[in-house]
Amino acid sequence: MPVFLNTTDAGFEADFETLLGAKREDSPDVDDVVAGIIADVRTRGDAAVLDLTAKFDRLELSAEQMRFSAEEIAQYCAQVPPAERAALEQAADRIRAYHIRQMPADESWTDEAGATLGWRWTPVSAAGLYVPGGLASYPSSVLMNAIPAKVAGVGRLAITVPTPDGQVNPLVMLAAQIAGVDEIYRIGGAQAVAALAYGTESIAAVDKITGPGNAFVAAAKRRVFGKVGIDMIAGPSEILVIADGENDPDWIALDLMSQAEHDESAQSILITTDAGFGRAVSDAVDNRLTSLERREIAAASWRDYGAVITVRDLDEAAALSNRLAPEHLELCVSDPDGLSEKIEHAGAIFLGQWTPEAIGDYVGGPNHVLPTARSARFSSGLSVLDFLKRTTLAKMSPDALRAIGPSAEVLARSESLEAHGLSVTARLNKLNR
Amino acid sequence: MPVFLNTTDAGFEADFETLLGAKREDSPDVDDVVAGIIADVRTRGDAAVLDLTAKFDRLELSAEQMRFSAEEIAQYCAQVPPAERAALEQAADRIRAYHIRQMPADESWTDEAGATLGWRWTPVSAAGLYVPGGLASYPSSVLMNAIPAKVAGVGRLAITVPTPDGQVNPLVMLAAQIAGVDEIYRIGGAQAVAALAYGTESIAAVDKITGPGNAFVAAAKRRVFGKVGIDMIAGPSEILVIADGENDPDWIALDLMSQAEHDESAQSILITTDAGFGRAVSDAVDNRLTSLERREIAAASWRDYGAVITVRDLDEAAALSNRLAPEHLELCVSDPDGLSEKIEHAGAIFLGQWTPEAIGDYVGGPNHVLPTARSARFSSGLSVLDFLKRTTLAKMSPDALRAIGPSAEVLARSESLEAHGLSVTARLNKLNR
Repeated sequence: MPVFLNTTDAGFEADFETLLGAKREDSPDVDDVVAGIIADVRTRGDAAVLDLTAKFDRLELSAEQMRFSAEEIAQYCAQVPPAERAALEQAADRIRAYHIRQMPADESWTDEAGATLGWRWTPVSAAGLYVPGGLASYPSSVLMNAIPAKVAGVGRLAITVPTPDGQVNPLVMLAAQIAGVDEIYRIGGAQAVAALAYGTESIAAVDKITGPGNAFVAAAKRRVFGKVGIDMIAGPSEILVIADGENDPDWIALDLMSQAEHDESAQSILITTDAGFGRAVSDAVDNRLTSLERREIAAASWRDYGAVITVRDLDEAAALSNRLAPEHLELCVSDPDGLSEKIEHAGAIFLGQWTPEAIGDYVGGPNHVLPTARSARFSSGLSVLDFLKRTTLAKMSPDALRAIGPSAEVLARSESLEAHGLSVTARLNKLNR
Repeated sequence: MPVFLNTTDAGFEADFETLLGAKREDSPDVDDVVAGIIADVRTRGDAAVLDLTAKFDRLELSAEQMRFSAEEIAQYCAQVPPAERAALEQAADRIRAYHIRQMPADESWTDEAGATLGWRWTPVSAAGLYVPGGLASYPSSVLMNAIPAKVAGVGRLAITVPTPDGQVNPLVMLAAQIAGVDEIYRIGGAQAVAALAYGTESIAAVDKITGPGNAFVAAAKRRVFGKVGIDMIAGPSEILVIADGENDPDWIALDLMSQAEHDESAQSILITTDAGFGRAVSDAVDNRLTSLERREIAAASWRDYGAVITVRDLDEAAALSNRLAPEHLELCVSDPDGLSEKIEHAGAIFLGQWTPEAIGDYVGGPNHVLPTARSARFSSGLSVLDFLKRTTLAKMSPDALRAIGPSAEVLARSESLEAHGLSVTARLNKLNR
């Protein structure tokens, strides 16, 4: 049973705080193991990666075999049935179209002092994308990570995907090909992250690493951060649905279950203005949980972290949503755009009853890599900006230096940074002030 | 003596690799101490912060005294002489004008499938800015961190600045006031970071923490990352000057020393097409090092990490610069804009001989918080984007769901996420496909 709350209950605030503070993830402490793996890869390069791949993935490879050949990739891609291929291509087209619009503009202007200022965006030269193996090897995640990188202009994009016991997901291969990935390596774990960050004889180092992974991958990304850039460390998935009583309870139940089925630590919350509707959704969930393929996972998530909250009105719903700062937020109300204006913190908003969150996972266009664990308070989903960096530009004319240089001299002196001031003074002297 | 290299030398590549790989910072491992401090603040709140302030800053405070009162702030601000006040105000105006231009636009459009897509930017609700105490208590850094936050629309901006033995820098107070900071606390170290991240009885938690600090502060920021957002962990400062022979050697020497004087671990590099000019700059540095106030620091930095590199031409200079990915890059050449086009990785570029890097530290307008240690390969300087986050928006019409829903069904099935697919199927069934 999920928790049922009502904002009119006396104990609501305490119960809601408990919900907010629920620790849903208990990551094993693998930091020491990961530190050892990274050191090994830095020291022994390919040999270390190959040994670790034999050990963890039960796969004996030569250095040359680490990278999938063009022929191998083509063979796997040919195994993908036409319907799946068409779906991946439609998804890729839509994700690409959305992310192209995110490309930021360079700017340059000259202000009244005569200073020409601006900035310029440039892509990261080389990026690495970690793709999990086995059950969580999602072709959609390949598209969501690789397409923004390629739209940003990343010159070289390498994927690592472990293939335990040699098991390869052909859809991952095809997604990589559609997205324009340049290199695919059949390695995984902390050793793959280390290889991407530091390079080996066979794998050139990259500048940025993105993509989801298990506790070892997450710990490795944290450790190599600084040497390379990383994306966020994602936690278990979450959805918040705000719905009035004018919805089909089964639709909302399925939307809640589409997060719950990801992971026992996932969280699905319904906020509704209609207590009876809330009960109807709960009944619909119970009904669906009798037959869903992943019913054990979904049931555990719903039981441990699910919640149905009845509120007085939609303003109250928006206020609670802003405290939750959900990764995914569905607004199944008569005026979703109006309610959306009141939302301050959310990774992605899905507006209206015809926009189930699953659309956003695959084909909507926006990215499905989104901030979890209330981090939408301060961070955003993956975008082209994650594969770009901005260089600021400044060019002073002699007049501009005359106009603003004296303030720099004063402030440098106040900070006891004499050479800073003198570098301005020497030039101003030349201009006879 | 700095190292003198020439790209025509046989051993150049090896020497340049050594320069690239030089480890300039040897941070003490304070992680265990910091973990203890954070746990203490989380458990005991104000009492822990006060105890630690008494211990590290030799300052006995009550909980009420942690925050500077409006009267105290006004008294310190009144101590600032008019010239310094005017300089801070000119700097603030220029920094504000630059950062206002960085504000990104919201977007919304409807595509040919009938899907309305877009995104919306919203500010972080509350941010904390760490300001170091003592010698490195720079009012310019207060402006550079606080103004972008306020331009972004951060509602509540709190500063922590330690005041060891009660020592307060009036210019820091005035910079905070000019920038519109809402709260100033006289605390520092890991305890200040913990208080900002987790909150205490007297200090409300924030969502994002920025600003420089010592090894304890850096370790604390790393540890609270995830609970709150943080900016980059900055390393020692660097400058690369690319200059032809048509420059005043003393100007370039001062530009190099304006980084070297920051820190013995700072790095100043000159790349020139004119070996004779390189020697002249080196002589000019030696001359300045006889008299600079911070000559001991600057001399150590120049001796240990300085370099003068002679290249065949400016293309070669650009290529080396891209490998260095410098924090600050001065282009003192006849066509700085043309050379700038060849620069792929740099935090900030200063164009032409009238733009010493010190202008950018104070009054140019662009931010002086910039990526160090070659991280300009994958990251950018501080900007309004650090205090904003993007929520993606998607709204399907029934027609849009008909057009793209089937692909979501196919991909959900291929990923064995049945509820994802069913949430689309249930709606498509209602539409009779």
